[in-house]
Amino acid sequence: MSPLPESDAKPEPERIDDLQRNGCRLIQRPDLFCFGMDAVLLAAFASVKRGDRVLDLCSGNGVIPILMDARLPGELRLEGSVQFTGLEINSICVDMSKRSAQMNGQSERVHFLEGDVRSYEKSGLKPGSFDRVTVNPPYMTGGGGLTGGNTGRVIARHEVLCTFDDVADCASRALKVGGHLYLVHRPHRLGDIFLSLNRHHLAVKKMRMVHPFADKEANMVLIEAVKGGRAYVHVEQPLVIFQTAGVYTEEVRAVYG
Amino acid sequence: MSPLPESDAKPEPERIDDLQRNGCRLIQRPDLFCFGMDAVLLAAFASVKRGDRVLDLCSGNGVIPILMDARLPGELRLEGSVQFTGLEINSICVDMSKRSAQMNGQSERVHFLEGDVRSYEKSGLKPGSFDRVTVNPPYMTGGGGLTGGNTGRVIARHEVLCTFDDVADCASRALKVGGHLYLVHRPHRLGDIFLSLNRHHLAVKKMRMVHPFADKEANMVLIEAVKGGRAYVHVEQPLVIFQTAGVYTEEVRAVYG
Repeated sequence: MSPLPESDAKPEPERIDDLQRNGCRLIQRPDLFCFGMDAVLLAAFASVKRGDRVLDLCSGNGVIPILMDARLPGELRLEGSVQFTGLEINSICVDMSKRSAQMNGQSERVHFLEGDVRSYEKSGLKPGSFDRVTVNPPYMTGGGGLTGGNTGRVIARHEVLCTFDDVADCASRALKVGGHLYLVHRPHRLGDIFLSLNRHHLAVKKMRMVHPFADKEANMVLIEAVKGGRAYVHVEQPLVIFQTAGVYTEEVRAVYG
Repeated sequence: MSPLPESDAKPEPERIDDLQRNGCRLIQRPDLFCFGMDAVLLAAFASVKRGDRVLDLCSGNGVIPILMDARLPGELRLEGSVQFTGLEINSICVDMSKRSAQMNGQSERVHFLEGDVRSYEKSGLKPGSFDRVTVNPPYMTGGGGLTGGNTGRVIARHEVLCTFDDVADCASRALKVGGHLYLVHRPHRLGDIFLSLNRHHLAVKKMRMVHPFADKEANMVLIEAVKGGRAYVHVEQPLVIFQTAGVYTEEVRAVYG
């Protein structure tokens, strides 16, 4: 695994945020990454069923598997029939996410592992062994010139340690044939996204554009793709965040519980 | 040029429809193809400026160049500074569209030509000579099993005589570097569309999803791509057709004039 770039800045203190789902909380460090609405929307967009093994790539502080587990209907949580694994390159993040899962009583179902999406096999996970993969990858290309004090944050946002093509490659290795990938990204990257998914035999099945207001350009896109599937895209109704300034739409209020 | 499949059915009579723009009308034959809302939305989505040479591929009855010319601000129409050419494989359609342009007094600005998108150079048009290309291509893959009585209509709707990749190839040949392609298609083909555009050096710049109602899946997509451009997609606000059953939204009413 490639060594992480060193940061000159002093680590910031941890904080604990309420996820407003089944009393779950999350340990975060602002200098590494704090989750945003994209993670919340992805956790709601991705569906799981009994018996699924779910892998989250570029897992960061683990918010997506922790939130997805917290959103499961009670019977699935109690049974522990859905298993989540988060793969993350930064050992400090892996440690934080393990402590979050422990704090929330999720440790039997939600696991975290240090590993690099560019060398999936080295992580100890088996190829073709997951039913679902989720990922909220770095959005921005390059970023070499942006490294400096906030190394952790830059890595989370820019393609410093992995490109989208690396992410698609890893997702395809991890998934069973017929398995589902769920991702959130910026619409301006749609060209790269379609090319990489196609290159790695992932067919887009569903897209949902996220618009801050009904009359504004989309600033996020949610995508579902199937490994080995036939290309046939459903573009669902747009997801609108605000009905008026500062007031969430009914759908977004429901997502936040 | 490949010969057109023969049709067993008797030709239907022509009809003349009002385009509701500057008194322009259009000769159509229902057994060949009648334009729909997709053509109207594409004509409004595509922008042109003074001096542009615009090529319409798979031009059918010529509705798109005829409507785009009819929508031009008066000074551009009078000057004739924008020139439109429609390329169409069916000689009956070419004849109808020429007569429509003549009937509307558009013949100096709007021209039609028989030709095949699969052999652009043979049509007599110069490579790299157009500023804009528009196309409302056949939406459905294959269609071999669907030919029969309604050959003309099947060709207009199914990829019998050309695939989307042929269309993208032809658009790229016709356009200058930096020239713009505008197309309307079905969202379910987005995977193929991104791959073909990329293969032919056309970078998607703008997409607009068209939804019948604000809470329904998109059933059309409008796309603008630039030859030799850098991939950076803007997904514009959704275009919604109906505000309630049978009542167009304000935007659609404005498009129809």
